[in-house]
Amino acid sequence: MSLINTQIKPFKATAYHNGKFVDVSDESVAGKWSVFVFYPADFTFVCPTELEDLADQYAEFQKLGVEIYSVSTDTHFSHKAWHDTSAAIGKVQYPMIADPTQVLSRNFEVLIEEEGMALRGTFVVNPEGEIKVMEVHDNGIGRVASELLRKVKAAQYIAAHPGEVCPAKWEEGAATLTPSLDLVGKI
Amino acid sequence: MSLINTQIKPFKATAYHNGKFVDVSDESVAGKWSVFVFYPADFTFVCPTELEDLADQYAEFQKLGVEIYSVSTDTHFSHKAWHDTSAAIGKVQYPMIADPTQVLSRNFEVLIEEEGMALRGTFVVNPEGEIKVMEVHDNGIGRVASELLRKVKAAQYIAAHPGEVCPAKWEEGAATLTPSLDLVGKI
Amino acid sequence: MSLINTQIKPFKATAYHNGKFVDVSDESVAGKWSVFVFYPADFTFVCPTELEDLADQYAEFQKLGVEIYSVSTDTHFSHKAWHDTSAAIGKVQYPMIADPTQVLSRNFEVLIEEEGMALRGTFVVNPEGEIKVMEVHDNGIGRVASELLRKVKAAQYIAAHPGEVCPAKWEEGAATLTPSLDLVGKI
Amino acid sequence: MSLINTQIKPFKATAYHNGKFVDVSDESVAGKWSVFVFYPADFTFVCPTELEDLADQYAEFQKLGVEIYSVSTDTHFSHKAWHDTSAAIGKVQYPMIADPTQVLSRNFEVLIEEEGMALRGTFVVNPEGEIKVMEVHDNGIGRVASELLRKVKAAQYIAAHPGEVCPAKWEEGAATLTPSLDLVGKI
Amino acid sequence: MSLINTQIKPFKATAYHNGKFVDVSDESVAGKWSVFVFYPADFTFVCPTELEDLADQYAEFQKLGVEIYSVSTDTHFSHKAWHDTSAAIGKVQYPMIADPTQVLSRNFEVLIEEEGMALRGTFVVNPEGEIKVMEVHDNGIGRVASELLRKVKAAQYIAAHPGEVCPAKWEEGAATLTPSLDLVGKI
Amino acid sequence: MSLINTQIKPFKATAYHNGKFVDVSDESVAGKWSVFVFYPADFTFVCPTELEDLADQYAEFQKLGVEIYSVSTDTHFSHKAWHDTSAAIGKVQYPMIADPTQVLSRNFEVLIEEEGMALRGTFVVNPEGEIKVMEVHDNGIGRVASELLRKVKAAQYIAAHPGEVCPAKWEEGAATLTPSLDLVGKI
Amino acid sequence: MSLINTQIKPFKATAYHNGKFVDVSDESVAGKWSVFVFYPADFTFVCPTELEDLADQYAEFQKLGVEIYSVSTDTHFSHKAWHDTSAAIGKVQYPMIADPTQVLSRNFEVLIEEEGMALRGTFVVNPEGEIKVMEVHDNGIGRVASELLRKVKAAQYIAAHPGEVCPAKWEEGAATLTPSLDLVGKI
Amino acid sequence: MSLINTQIKPFKATAYHNGKFVDVSDESVAGKWSVFVFYPADFTFVCPTELEDLADQYAEFQKLGVEIYSVSTDTHFSHKAWHDTSAAIGKVQYPMIADPTQVLSRNFEVLIEEEGMALRGTFVVNPEGEIKVMEVHDNGIGRVASELLRKVKAAQYIAAHPGEVCPAKWEEGAATLTPSLDLVGKI
Amino acid sequence: MSLINTQIKPFKATAYHNGKFVDVSDESVAGKWSVFVFYPADFTFVCPTELEDLADQYAEFQKLGVEIYSVSTDTHFSHKAWHDTSAAIGKVQYPMIADPTQVLSRNFEVLIEEEGMALRGTFVVNPEGEIKVMEVHDNGIGRVASELLRKVKAAQYIAAHPGEVCPAKWEEGAATLTPSLDLVGKI
Amino acid sequence: MSLINTQIKPFKATAYHNGKFVDVSDESVAGKWSVFVFYPADFTFVCPTELEDLADQYAEFQKLGVEIYSVSTDTHFSHKAWHDTSAAIGKVQYPMIADPTQVLSRNFEVLIEEEGMALRGTFVVNPEGEIKVMEVHDNGIGRVASELLRKVKAAQYIAAHPGEVCPAKWEEGAATLTPSLDLVGKI
Repeated sequence: MSLINTQIKPFKATAYHNGKFVDVSDESVAGKWSVFVFYPADFTFVCPTELEDLADQYAEFQKLGVEIYSVSTDTHFSHKAWHDTSAAIGKVQYPMIADPTQVLSRNFEVLIEEEGMALRGTFVVNPEGEIKVMEVHDNGIGRVASELLRKVKAAQYIAAHPGEVCPAKWEEGAATLTPSLDLVGKI
Repeated sequence: MSLINTQIKPFKATAYHNGKFVDVSDESVAGKWSVFVFYPADFTFVCPTELEDLADQYAEFQKLGVEIYSVSTDTHFSHKAWHDTSAAIGKVQYPMIADPTQVLSRNFEVLIEEEGMALRGTFVVNPEGEIKVMEVHDNGIGRVASELLRKVKAAQYIAAHPGEVCPAKWEEGAATLTPSLDLVGKI
Repeated sequence: MSLINTQIKPFKATAYHNGKFVDVSDESVAGKWSVFVFYPADFTFVCPTELEDLADQYAEFQKLGVEIYSVSTDTHFSHKAWHDTSAAIGKVQYPMIADPTQVLSRNFEVLIEEEGMALRGTFVVNPEGEIKVMEVHDNGIGRVASELLRKVKAAQYIAAHPGEVCPAKWEEGAATLTPSLDLVGKI
Repeated sequence: MSLINTQIKPFKATAYHNGKFVDVSDESVAGKWSVFVFYPADFTFVCPTELEDLADQYAEFQKLGVEIYSVSTDTHFSHKAWHDTSAAIGKVQYPMIADPTQVLSRNFEVLIEEEGMALRGTFVVNPEGEIKVMEVHDNGIGRVASELLRKVKAAQYIAAHPGEVCPAKWEEGAATLTPSLDLVGKI
Repeated sequence: MSLINTQIKPFKATAYHNGKFVDVSDESVAGKWSVFVFYPADFTFVCPTELEDLADQYAEFQKLGVEIYSVSTDTHFSHKAWHDTSAAIGKVQYPMIADPTQVLSRNFEVLIEEEGMALRGTFVVNPEGEIKVMEVHDNGIGRVASELLRKVKAAQYIAAHPGEVCPAKWEEGAATLTPSLDLVGKI
Repeated sequence: MSLINTQIKPFKATAYHNGKFVDVSDESVAGKWSVFVFYPADFTFVCPTELEDLADQYAEFQKLGVEIYSVSTDTHFSHKAWHDTSAAIGKVQYPMIADPTQVLSRNFEVLIEEEGMALRGTFVVNPEGEIKVMEVHDNGIGRVASELLRKVKAAQYIAAHPGEVCPAKWEEGAATLTPSLDLVGKI
Repeated sequence: MSLINTQIKPFKATAYHNGKFVDVSDESVAGKWSVFVFYPADFTFVCPTELEDLADQYAEFQKLGVEIYSVSTDTHFSHKAWHDTSAAIGKVQYPMIADPTQVLSRNFEVLIEEEGMALRGTFVVNPEGEIKVMEVHDNGIGRVASELLRKVKAAQYIAAHPGEVCPAKWEEGAATLTPSLDLVGKI
Repeated sequence: MSLINTQIKPFKATAYHNGKFVDVSDESVAGKWSVFVFYPADFTFVCPTELEDLADQYAEFQKLGVEIYSVSTDTHFSHKAWHDTSAAIGKVQYPMIADPTQVLSRNFEVLIEEEGMALRGTFVVNPEGEIKVMEVHDNGIGRVASELLRKVKAAQYIAAHPGEVCPAKWEEGAATLTPSLDLVGKI
Repeated sequence: MSLINTQIKPFKATAYHNGKFVDVSDESVAGKWSVFVFYPADFTFVCPTELEDLADQYAEFQKLGVEIYSVSTDTHFSHKAWHDTSAAIGKVQYPMIADPTQVLSRNFEVLIEEEGMALRGTFVVNPEGEIKVMEVHDNGIGRVASELLRKVKAAQYIAAHPGEVCPAKWEEGAATLTPSLDLVGKI
Repeated sequence: MSLINTQIKPFKATAYHNGKFVDVSDESVAGKWSVFVFYPADFTFVCPTELEDLADQYAEFQKLGVEIYSVSTDTHFSHKAWHDTSAAIGKVQYPMIADPTQVLSRNFEVLIEEEGMALRGTFVVNPEGEIKVMEVHDNGIGRVASELLRKVKAAQYIAAHPGEVCPAKWEEGAATLTPSLDLVGKI
């Protein structure tokens, strides 16, 4: 069964966030839009470029009321050390969740059991805790923050406008469709 | 467990393809790159815009040696009738798979059991039959063919260049990374 | 065990009916006689001739207080498109039930699992929701609406006249039999 | 699951046939078309009228190479006694199968468990032993031998003409349909 | 375990009795002595001679306050027809129970499963519903009504005279034994 | 299920027979007709009268080639002591089987579990080891040896004359019936 | 697990006692010391010498307030007959329990299942129903009543003198030991 | 089930024997008579008096070819230390088995689970490894070596003289009984 | 799972302590620090040197409010005898627990099942009954009491100073560390 | 059951070792003595002091032919980054095993499931792969490398000198004990 439109499962984790260790849980993310960005491991290759790309666009997400959570199976100690020593990661201002118990990676079905690390999975979660968009890549293939931004906007738009849907290639401001019996078989 | 890097499961289906009914199976898709594009139902709203978008870029995919398969739980009779009567769908030249037994939709975990229809799921499959990229949207949110094209190119590039990985925002022709111990903790 | 004299099982479905999408359920059919007519798929061959035959006799059924429901595993979108584009189906004024979840086809034991389509099954259901007559054909063999009408009349007659039964070849207005001990071994 | 297109299950029974007790089994009915006509009990009401109606048309069935088997849960002793004493049943020249073990009535799913008697079920079986047509009535509603004859002819016609199907209301000699892709969505 | 001294199990059946169809059940036989006489089938050979023998002695049983119930797996329709057409059976004035559901034959463990008919079993049941005497023969061996009468009398005598027992060859009016410690080892 | 026409189960036992302790088993009784006569206990009341009655008719049984076996759950020591001290039992010349393991009493389903003693059960077994007649009484009701003799003769007669059956009240030398189709419904 | 210090299990039995049949149960033996003496069978060899030996010392046991119960799987009828006819057994004044249901022999784990008889087992039971001494012999080896008497006395002595124990070879009146920490390692 | 006449179960243990640690097992005790004497614990009260009593009579047992094995759940280290420091135990010349794994105490069903110590159990085992006599006491009651000697002699006598049995109170040299049918009911 | 930080399981045992037998249980050890020192057996080799080493340092442990419990599967009788006869063990003033039921050895997972003896295991338990330190050796390797003392002090220090931890080689009085986010990645 | 004397379970892991990533497995550690040192997480507090202490004594271990493996659930990327950035860890020359799959931490039963990190556990493994010494601390209590060195020496000494054991407080060069029966109860 797909994770789309299911409720995120309960979790409790520690994150490194702007120089502090903070608690994050399914309850604390409720009530606003959030994006969970899984990656394999701290101190590796594609990962910092992806996290830096998100850091660069973080202000845009903030404006939309969206929080970003990066997640790996490393500890919060490791996240802090990485943040201290990497120029790219040093830019990150969103919470970096530590998942050494691998509960979160299993919940989102991205854990590679034989490696103990996560796949590159991205999940857009609405304020009700329902997953609306998911995207998972083989670990060699990087993601693009701007495309993620487009999807978040589309998800927010249709949430705000019941009865409308976003057609292919929809960009913010473009026309949407309003399904009705008359349209059936006419597009 | 994630579908990423798993083998696609066996299936047999009938497709409408350029005026003919043809057989498609896990065996017939083996040996080349393929993209499976699930959508909810013929004669509906977002679907034709997505299928048209793909039809418009079909030549690009063909150049990369990639076949596109659209899939819904409608019958091949319905696909043929839709192709005959819709201007948008009339442009489609790739195979339109009929999945009334819902086997394929269950295999790719996109079936909405209580509706008997599929979610908007896209899957990039390599010639060995392994799923390398997956993307699933709530049905109100449309997809973008050009972004799919980028991912296919990245997947093909790393398959062709063992030892390299594509960083975030990678576009065809851009530099890739070659993981090595020296890079650990240095990006 | 036979379905005859069992209660129809719960279902919820959407139908296309005279230009509208309407809800149909086991509860909405209760309280009057109904006929469920299953067929394999929209846009096929025998099916429109059967549905047209029923459309032609619909007024007769209406006079008897009987509602007709045609059912296939296609969606209501497909039903609407077929109704719009086929002269034969365009005549249909009874509700065309969409069964993409295949619940109804399984309830009436007419689903061909390996095809995802229904057999040609006809079921007469009384106002109490009990199946009184059933008839199922291999898909190559068409049905006759007038014979169905005769059976409906016989079923209604014996429901209205407890203690009487309809002999072979009974037609409306003909004599019936009243079973009694004296008749035993005497016919 | 429907009995249509399933193989009849093994059985062994004794029948009364033209003044003799004979063995009948799934093996002895193989190789020619047959019709199984179940009814509740010897010495009852609707039953003799139905069996007589069939007896009257028996020559027609014989011409088509079809054998008729009537079946009830009575013993062969009872069948013989009924044949001896009833004018209507005295006309019967086809085998009257005794099913006191109720194996055959269970095989064809027409046994009313709480009565130990069968429903009025009719089954057309092809020479390969597959059920092609079935019809079951509540016990108060009689059957019509001529309609059965029409169905047998349609079943034989499509068996003899692969690729053709019989539309609604088809009678012997009328045109049939040959399904092809061009017809899809055109009737 | 033996059926002797067990309670008869619940049953509901229809019997042919003196020109009427009547209901018989475990409840309706309670409160008086009864004899259940099973036989294989109506219209057969040994059976009518046994039932006639019982019919001839029925007055004797009646005097003792004992009801006789004959039982076969035939229907009540068949019993009536047999009674109408057989001189021997025409004499029967006790209820002829129909057991087409085979519940009663299974309760008394006399059903021959592979034939759907009962063995020649006789059971004497006291007013409390307990089986006191049982006798079962292979179907080729007939029973004797006068011996049954002797057993019924012995059963009634010891029921009426607690503390006495009937020795071998006891006939009505003969001396009985009163067990006591003094008799132990003295006979 | 009835014991009639089943094979007797394996057993091994010790019997007291004409001043000796002998072994008896299912194998040693095979090949000739035998009668097993169960009774509750040595040194009791009805039992010696029954065993004496059989002793008096033993010569008749011997002439028919029939062996009698009396059986109780007492030991062979007890049988010997009873034979030594009781005038009635002193006459017994047939084997008295000891069944302290209660295997035989359970095999023939006559053990009263809560007393550890057998019911008064009589079983006629043919040379093939099949039970042809059974009779079980509540312990207060004695049996009659002459009636047993009649049944043994009937069982032997139909075994010797395949195709004939013994009607009710049949005595040695009387006419038997030969079942045939012509007789059906004619007696 | 050993039976020593376990509670005797519930039982109900009939015994022959001084010319009467009496009921004995776990409840009726409670409240005083008792000895259960199992033996294989009435009318055998070692058994009467053992029971006679106990009969000779019965007065001694009575003085100690101890009841003796002999037990075999024979019936109470057999016990009575044995008592009547054997000089040795005629001396017995204690209850002779009949155990044809073999419940008691199983409770005390002395039943030889393949013979239906008990081993030579002796059990001393205190007023609380707990087994304090047990002794079981292969059936060829007889027991000695005087040794049993010594054990009963020792059991009663330590029951009456908490804190003392009887050393090896202890006889009535001899010194006992009072365990204390000072004695540890000093004897 | 009783342990009498069962085979002793496999075991391996270490014993202290005349100044050495030796291995003892089911295999090493086979081929001669042996006696297993269980007691609760080294350094306790009744135990040394019992072991000393046996030590005093050890020459008698040796003459009969019988080995004695004392057993407790203490270790062989403890046995050695006890032997070194106790005058009574210092006399012991037979093997003292250590059973800290409690396997042997469980095999002979004398382990008190809630104390981890054995009951006072004595077992006579024949050269075939079968237990012929068992005796178990509550721990406060001591045993008598001379009575054990008598039982061993009786067990050996009947083993050497098949067909004879030892009556009650039998002492070496006394007459035995030879069971025969003539003796039944005569003692 | 590790025993560290689990609650000790319930137990009840007898110990030899300063010339007395005393009860020890999970409840009696609660409320103060304790050390459980398992060893294989009384009267052996390494064991007395270890117990003596602890006896020599017992005053130090007492000062820290720590009780020492030595444990083996020997009985308390054996402990007392050992204490009486060994110069080394004679020094012991702490309780010597007897564990013949092996419950405690199983609770702490140090029982060698095939020997019935414990490994050399040491466990430091805090006043809440939680195991804070464990150490288990193959039986040939002795332990050092002074190292145990160091660990107890460290465990007590961190219990008394929440938020501090003892670094490697910490000795009483040395500096400890106070974990804080600033220290992460800085040591 | 204790891990002592069990075989280490199979594992495969990546370690950071002197500037390289190397494979380590149960097979690669076989054939020489090894020490596994588990700790909670890279970049934390007690851990670097312990690892530094071991690094300082590494030459001593090397001389004894012993390899040290530190293990945490961090990745090898994290180990490398820590080694690069910490002065204390920079000294480490032994392999640092990465255990993100937590297989090794579970094998040695030190995983804290609810934290995804290991306890401070130390295990000495002999060349045959058997665990000879284990020590586990609550995470606040540091370990001492010199004490570990003493235990390794004792383990090696007794492995090299079968028949000797190391008493308490044994240091390299000190006398050992040779267990013999004469010593039992004498120390």
